[in-house]
Formats: sequence, structure tokens, C-alpha cells
Amino acid sequence: MSVLHKKVISNELAEKMIMKAKEKAEELNIAVNIAIVDNGGHLVAFSRMDDAPILSIDISQNKAYTAIAFGIPTHEWYPLIDKSPALKTGIVHTSRLVVFGGGYPIKLDGQVIGGIGVSGGSEEEDRLCCEAALKVLNHVLQK
Amino acid sequence: MSVLHKKVISNELAEKMIMKAKEKAEELNIAVNIAIVDNGGHLVAFSRMDDAPILSIDISQNKAYTAIAFGIPTHEWYPLIDKSPALKTGIVHTSRLVVFGGGYPIKLDGQVIGGIGVSGGSEEEDRLCCEAALKVLNHVLQK
Amino acid sequence: MSVLHKKVISNELAEKMIMKAKEKAEELNIAVNIAIVDNGGHLVAFSRMDDAPILSIDISQNKAYTAIAFGIPTHEWYPLIDKSPALKTGIVHTSRLVVFGGGYPIKLDGQVIGGIGVSGGSEEEDRLCCEAALKVLNHVLQK
Amino acid sequence: MSVLHKKVISNELAEKMIMKAKEKAEELNIAVNIAIVDNGGHLVAFSRMDDAPILSIDISQNKAYTAIAFGIPTHEWYPLIDKSPALKTGIVHTSRLVVFGGGYPIKLDGQVIGGIGVSGGSEEEDRLCCEAALKVLNHVLQK
Repeated sequence: MSVLHKKVISNELAEKMIMKAKEKAEELNIAVNIAIVDNGGHLVAFSRMDDAPILSIDISQNKAYTAIAFGIPTHEWYPLIDKSPALKTGIVHTSRLVVFGGGYPIKLDGQVIGGIGVSGGSEEEDRLCCEAALKVLNHVLQK
Repeated sequence: MSVLHKKVISNELAEKMIMKAKEKAEELNIAVNIAIVDNGGHLVAFSRMDDAPILSIDISQNKAYTAIAFGIPTHEWYPLIDKSPALKTGIVHTSRLVVFGGGYPIKLDGQVIGGIGVSGGSEEEDRLCCEAALKVLNHVLQK
Repeated sequence: MSVLHKKVISNELAEKMIMKAKEKAEELNIAVNIAIVDNGGHLVAFSRMDDAPILSIDISQNKAYTAIAFGIPTHEWYPLIDKSPALKTGIVHTSRLVVFGGGYPIKLDGQVIGGIGVSGGSEEEDRLCCEAALKVLNHVLQK
Repeated sequence: MSVLHKKVISNELAEKMIMKAKEKAEELNIAVNIAIVDNGGHLVAFSRMDDAPILSIDISQNKAYTAIAFGIPTHEWYPLIDKSPALKTGIVHTSRLVVFGGGYPIKLDGQVIGGIGVSGGSEEEDRLCCEAALKVLNHVLQK
């Protein structure tokens, strides 16, 4: 009777990623919300930079959730549904689903170990913050 | 004073249909969520295959619900609302309504006895899994 | 592969029961809300008498739902949970559960075919209205 | 940078546990709802036996959720909160928290790999069904 073996993001790793996302946001001169969830979509760490929009607190968390809940970055959703009018009209009503950029699954050895969501800047800026944070993974992989 | 007589899916039949949907999913090399509801839309059986997307747990159940709640497969909804801009804009906000493929009413002798919803693959793949499960009905009808 | 056979309340029978509940309410000089649901808990008929309290619209429907969802009259819930402090503290938070009188399963040949809920009078009065309506069943049984 | 390593219940193991819970319910002559969730509280498998109460569909799932969400069986909650009037009054409003028996964490090597919830019988009966299902774990441990 098989049991699945999963790697899951630790609090230490999550905090490190948030730090890196913040550094990128400061470099871009923006204030954002950053959320990290585990592979079950539950919040591990969160940080709202001074003056980051309140509206984006939930969006950042929903982006991280969406990323782990389907295993792809949120910016890949729109091209996917754009081909099917039915999906485009319907699936956007799914609770917590975000179909625009700024959410990424955090992967290690091909496995989703968590998710990151950034919200508060432009879609482009939010993605840059996520990508900066994801580079922390390289250090984990090298060990 | 008339009373209505309804046939309703049994737990045994629901479990058998889930098994068949899983077999099809394995054949297609995908991992999906499968939900079976009774004619009142209440969950009878559910199974999430290993690594099937979490996002699709609710979608599969909502597809099954939509199927019994209106008596048509979910992929028939979009062509229906596409003709009316008002419907297309408005009715998609209906709670639990899914307007894309992967949900089918389970019918016996022309009566809706339950519903099946599959989610996790492409729309096409989800439908194939449902259709494989629905073939179990033929055995019921032959008896 | 078994299929279940269920009797379900018809619209005609539901309307007849509402008429009887109203007659009883008029006799008691009260104004109530009366809800009839099918065996899946879905509303079949509803009537709010002039000046019946708005607060009781949902309560009447929840009473009818509770009755079919567990198969016992709502006034039997409190004696049941009163013996167990854990149940008494916890189960009352269940969505739509009503643990006071005024909801009854509608049974035919031992099967739950629907539910009735009345709200707007005292617990005692609500129950009397339900019981007056349930007498309609005798006519159905005699046929 | 540490990553956590988690064992998680598989679909195969979940289905096996549901089968065992059903066998126990049949032995007890009751009809119940059985829900198995993974360590993130997401549904893996569910089965409602014929004529099991609809009210208990959500309760069984919430019991399984509560079990993984705090790591203790649901029947241990009431003695815990009974000592503190504030907790007893307040914490029961927590979304999805069940403070009565019938939910257990599924543990392997001291780790919570999922949760089981049974609802539809008495608290005692629901617990017996869970415990029968949990015996499947012994086979996993022996391998």
C-alpha cells in the first residue's frame, strides 16, 4: 500500500524567499505584498511592505494558492483559456483562481513544494519579484 | 394525490463508475478528480487520483452538480449562452454553475438518477473519462 | 448493480400541505412561513402569510432541510444533543441545522419523500401547523 | 536551507480505508459518510453509503479536516475546551472545526499523513468505523 513522499517548503526557506522578493521590490521602487504557501496551499509566510495596497493582500495569497493548486505559474492561465471561449467565460469564477501574472509554483526536483504570490506592482513587476525569490531555490538544489 | 417515483444512483454503482473513470484516466496518462452526486446534487462518492490538481476538487463536484441541476452535460452550456450576451455575462455568476465540459447527467430510462464530474485533464480528456464511466450504465440497463 | 427507488413529494401534494398549514395558522390566529422541500432538500413550495416575520423565511426552509437531512423532526434534536456536552456545544454550528421544533420529515411507507418547516409562531404553534399539514398524507396512503 | 519531508496518504490507501470503514458500518447496521483528506486537508476520497444522512456529508469532511488541522482526534477537543469558558464559547465558531468524536488524524511513523472523518451514526459508532479503517495502517507499517 503506497504512501506518497513529498518535499515541502520550510519556514526558513519561505522567509528567505520573502526577503529576496522585498529586495527586488525596493530595487524597482515599489511596495508589494508577498505570500508563500506550502504544497497544500496553506500560508507559511507573508509580508506587506509599508504602503503596499491592502487590495493586494488577498490577491497575493490567491496567486500563491493558484500556483500550487494547478502546478503552473498564474501568467500561463490566460493563454490556456484564451483558446476556449467556454473556459474563458466560465473557469474565471473558480474560487481563488487568479489568471494573471505574479504567482509561481516553487519546485524542487520536479515536485511542487509550495507557491509564491506577489501583488502590488504591475504584472511585470510582480513577476520580477517572484523570479528573484525563486533564485533562492538554486542554493537549495546545489546542496 | 400524486407522488413522484425516482430512480437514484446507489453507492455501489457510483463506486463502479469512479473505477471506470480512473481506468480511462490512467490510459490517458492523466490524474483527475472524479465526483458522483445523486439526483439531488449531494455527493455519493469522490476520488482524487495521486497528484491530481487540488484546484479541480471543487470543479469536479460543481460539474456533477451542474449536470443534475439542469439535466444536460456541462459542455452544452456554452453554445446555449453564447447566443445571448446577457446570459453569457450574467448566468456564469450562478453559484456552482460550470459552463465547460466534464460534467454529465447519469440517466436511466430517460430519468436523471445522478451526475458525474471529472476535472484535472483537458476539457476533452475530462469528457472521455466521464463517458467511459457512463458505459457502466449499459450493464444496469441490460438487467 | 443496484439502483435505489425513491418516492418524492409532488408539487400538487406540497401545495395541498401548505394550504392545510395555512388553515391551521389562521385558526391559531398567527401568520407564518411554510416551506416544503423534496427528499434532496430542494424547495418545492413556499408561502409567507401576510405579515409573517421575514426572519422566519430562512428558518422555515432550514427546518424543512434539517428534517430531510437527518430524517427526524427538528424538535427531537435537542433531547438528542442534551445528553452529550460535546455535541451540544459543537453540532449546533452545522450549516442550516435547526435544533428546535417546527420541522418534520414527510414520510410515506417509511421513506422520507420530503420535509416541511413552519416558522413565525411559537415552537408549539409552528409544530401544530406542520402536524395539520402532515395529515394530508393519510389521504395519499389510503389510495 | 532545509526542506521538510512529508509522507502523504495515497489514493490507494484512502480507498482501502474507506472500504474498511464501510465494512464496520455494515457490521454495526448503520449507514455513514466517510471522508479521507490528505495532510493539507484536501479531499482524497469520499463515500456515502445508501441512505446515510445528507446532513453528515459535510460533517464527515469537516471531521477529517479538523483532525489534520490540529493533529488530534476530534473527540479530544471537548475535554480540552471544557476547562475554559472563553474557549468553549468562542473557538466552536472556527470554520470547519468539529469538537465531537468521529475524526482522526492518520499517522505513520508519528507523522500526520492525512485524516479520516465518519458521520451518520452515533458518536461512538462513528469512532468505531474510523478505528476499523485506521487498522489498515498496520499493514503499511509492517512493510
